[in-house]
Amino acid sequence: MIVSAATKSRSSDGYAAAIGELSAAFGNRVVTSQAVREQHGNTVTWIANQPPDAVVFPQSTADVQQIVRICSNHGMPIIPYGVGSSLEGHVNAPQGGVSIDFRDMNQLLTVHAEDLDCVVQAGITRKALNAQLRDSGLFFPIDPGADASLGGMASTRASGTNAVRYGTMKDNVIAMKVVLANGEVIDTARRAKKTSAGYDLTRLMVGSEGTLGIITELTLKLSGIPEAISGGRCPFPSVEAACNAAITTIQAGIPVARIELLDALQVRALNIASQVGLPETTLLLMEFHGTEASVAEQATRFGEIAEDLGGGPFVWTAVAEERTKLWEARHNAAMANFKLRPGAAIVATDVCVPISRLAECVTATQADIAESRIIAPIVGHVGDGNFHLTMLIDLSDADEVKRAEGLSGRLVDRALAMDGTCTGEHGVGQGKMKYMKAEHGAAAVAAMVAIKQALDPQNILNPGKMIAQD
Amino acid sequence: MIVSAATKSRSSDGYAAAIGELSAAFGNRVVTSQAVREQHGNTVTWIANQPPDAVVFPQSTADVQQIVRICSNHGMPIIPYGVGSSLEGHVNAPQGGVSIDFRDMNQLLTVHAEDLDCVVQAGITRKALNAQLRDSGLFFPIDPGADASLGGMASTRASGTNAVRYGTMKDNVIAMKVVLANGEVIDTARRAKKTSAGYDLTRLMVGSEGTLGIITELTLKLSGIPEAISGGRCPFPSVEAACNAAITTIQAGIPVARIELLDALQVRALNIASQVGLPETTLLLMEFHGTEASVAEQATRFGEIAEDLGGGPFVWTAVAEERTKLWEARHNAAMANFKLRPGAAIVATDVCVPISRLAECVTATQADIAESRIIAPIVGHVGDGNFHLTMLIDLSDADEVKRAEGLSGRLVDRALAMDGTCTGEHGVGQGKMKYMKAEHGAAAVAAMVAIKQALDPQNILNPGKMIAQD
Repeated sequence: MIVSAATKSRSSDGYAAAIGELSAAFGNRVVTSQAVREQHGNTVTWIANQPPDAVVFPQSTADVQQIVRICSNHGMPIIPYGVGSSLEGHVNAPQGGVSIDFRDMNQLLTVHAEDLDCVVQAGITRKALNAQLRDSGLFFPIDPGADASLGGMASTRASGTNAVRYGTMKDNVIAMKVVLANGEVIDTARRAKKTSAGYDLTRLMVGSEGTLGIITELTLKLSGIPEAISGGRCPFPSVEAACNAAITTIQAGIPVARIELLDALQVRALNIASQVGLPETTLLLMEFHGTEASVAEQATRFGEIAEDLGGGPFVWTAVAEERTKLWEARHNAAMANFKLRPGAAIVATDVCVPISRLAECVTATQADIAESRIIAPIVGHVGDGNFHLTMLIDLSDADEVKRAEGLSGRLVDRALAMDGTCTGEHGVGQGKMKYMKAEHGAAAVAAMVAIKQALDPQNILNPGKMIAQD
Repeated sequence: MIVSAATKSRSSDGYAAAIGELSAAFGNRVVTSQAVREQHGNTVTWIANQPPDAVVFPQSTADVQQIVRICSNHGMPIIPYGVGSSLEGHVNAPQGGVSIDFRDMNQLLTVHAEDLDCVVQAGITRKALNAQLRDSGLFFPIDPGADASLGGMASTRASGTNAVRYGTMKDNVIAMKVVLANGEVIDTARRAKKTSAGYDLTRLMVGSEGTLGIITELTLKLSGIPEAISGGRCPFPSVEAACNAAITTIQAGIPVARIELLDALQVRALNIASQVGLPETTLLLMEFHGTEASVAEQATRFGEIAEDLGGGPFVWTAVAEERTKLWEARHNAAMANFKLRPGAAIVATDVCVPISRLAECVTATQADIAESRIIAPIVGHVGDGNFHLTMLIDLSDADEVKRAEGLSGRLVDRALAMDGTCTGEHGVGQGKMKYMKAEHGAAAVAAMVAIKQALDPQNILNPGKMIAQD
């Protein structure tokens, strides 16, 4: 059983003509084979695959502009596509249309080392970017786990393990080149570090999931590669003790770079997959960035905080190989979880609450997982109050799917009741649309719909995502 | 001579009825005296005073909602008012209307110490807020100089001397309660530290200058009061050397809290006004926040960088009294400048450029100041690439006003040519409207106008500001 995705009737009369015009303009960079179309329908979650009618591979902003103009003339939906690592059906084509795959727009265009910024095309992935930046002593810190494209990361307002120190995509995108639904190209801002000149189009576009415009280039804030990094892991007697350690660490002003919660089941999965030999209890994985003296001081202070709260021993190292092994295991958590239940489908949840409520939210959720009889290890970006259940589900078992849906829904309700959000970093896509009114209220959603209609009156930009317009 | 502000014809037929309804609802909290009305038209710059038809003092979000509904029914403009410290005619009433003065909505509502946030009413000023926060060990860092209201600071996307470390209002507002033009009240976000749930209404509202909604409450990010602060001043042989010291400091990862450029004329004004005895040359004023060891280390490292670039000696102290005297002098720069030319009007410019271009921009501007024969000391937030000319102008001298306008216009052109912005932190208001198309391009301004029309179809929210809709 696959959870069905919402669809909406739309006249597809013009689609064939649009694809014809696209093919005339772009030749074999327009692909309509079944395999390629299905590959561009989302498959990372339990939302059904909804392939587009065609996939086109632009090479420039001008190409994207031409694609948008052709599609606009024919009322054909446009779905931007990075690497397909999004988790909420963002790249599905519920109303058909053209998927714009940014595979061939993957260049680092300029590095301004003195200004700590760079300009990239939307299709470059974060690992490719950082590989090319290495010699500059700079890096782009946002790390959502997957080797996502920067355009995709901006579209979903991605963050990840080091957001506690470096912020999210909203904090690290300075400006973007965007093709609007009317075919106009805009720069959302200039390269100055700050501005008060008008509406913040940059941050309106960040997180808009391709529904307000198509990002073709990004100016990104860069950070200096830390002189030294230390890291380690610390067991705790309870989720509450671990969360309190995180709160105390942040309140003490320790500029922690990563502070990740793993529950015992998640640790077991890492041990099975990566043989890291971690104690199978509630753990915090830590990372500190700074000078050699500072990372040692940070680690020592954290160790004291952990001990005060009944945790420890905090085992840490500044040796790169040991640290890397630990964090690689953490990064492979999603894949490791497959080993807990081979053949299962993976569905990730993504609530985020004020950190003062995190322990309560995680603890209540652990009880709910047990009652729901769902296998669901937990990882949490506890410095931000964001945590994920990785539900391992047999999609052929209708009863189990129903229990998982119930668990996921109650989790969102629990987070909203604690002044939290249904999605800390994955985005809305199709999967979280049903929670938007509960989270924002009808008037705020109506304001979002008004903005959407103002910028995309035909509703051709990634329709059927984020906000219901019916 | 006063530079005239733009006006637009609008039917004022309903204004009297609206004021009548407001008076019936709010009694003596509606004021129509000439003195109070003129006090609420802007006077801090060379833009002429344009008083509203009435001033109303709400006490709650519900009051604001009622005001908006009454005004909306009669097509009457609404202008939010904090303390009147804005610099670009933001609170003028070019089309008449009602000024909403937030004087009586000045409460700190809640402090969530564990989450490092607090909730305030829009009328609280930053100094009042920090006075009430002191016992919590937390503070709100954004410091635009004036003791502005938080609602006003959010509206103009304010920043100031310590934005290099703490960011601007866009980085320090978590959520807001906003009354929309249709009278609906929305919360722009929840209190979770991050979210990917929909369009970023918070950052759309921050910097929108009251044109998209009326902010009544704000949830603010707080920072820990630093354990130790060190600061001092360092002379440089040239603006270029000072700017290079700033760039090197930031690239080296020194988490400088303030790094302020003063030119020789600005230093002289401080010496006259505050008897601080500074060397009258290009100076950087520095401040470092951290542990005692860390602020000493930061100061030492900066001193070495300055010396390498021909600057110094860097005279610094961790003694609070000495440091405070220096920064108080800096904060009083605007007032100090009056001493350079008693009786003159003050007009501040506000460009911001990538920091790699800052030295070039400041140096060219100094030559332009000399050629223009305008008295204009310079202060710069050089960590952000933002600097201000404080033009001291005899408004009765038409030729001088013309020369100052020319200087100001060329400065904006110069900044835009360097990928900069016409306003780093003061906002657009009436004063910078004419630069919006040059800065953003017609298509981006059209997108802003579309958003404005979608959320305020009657154009009653602070009309005649930011974007021309004609």
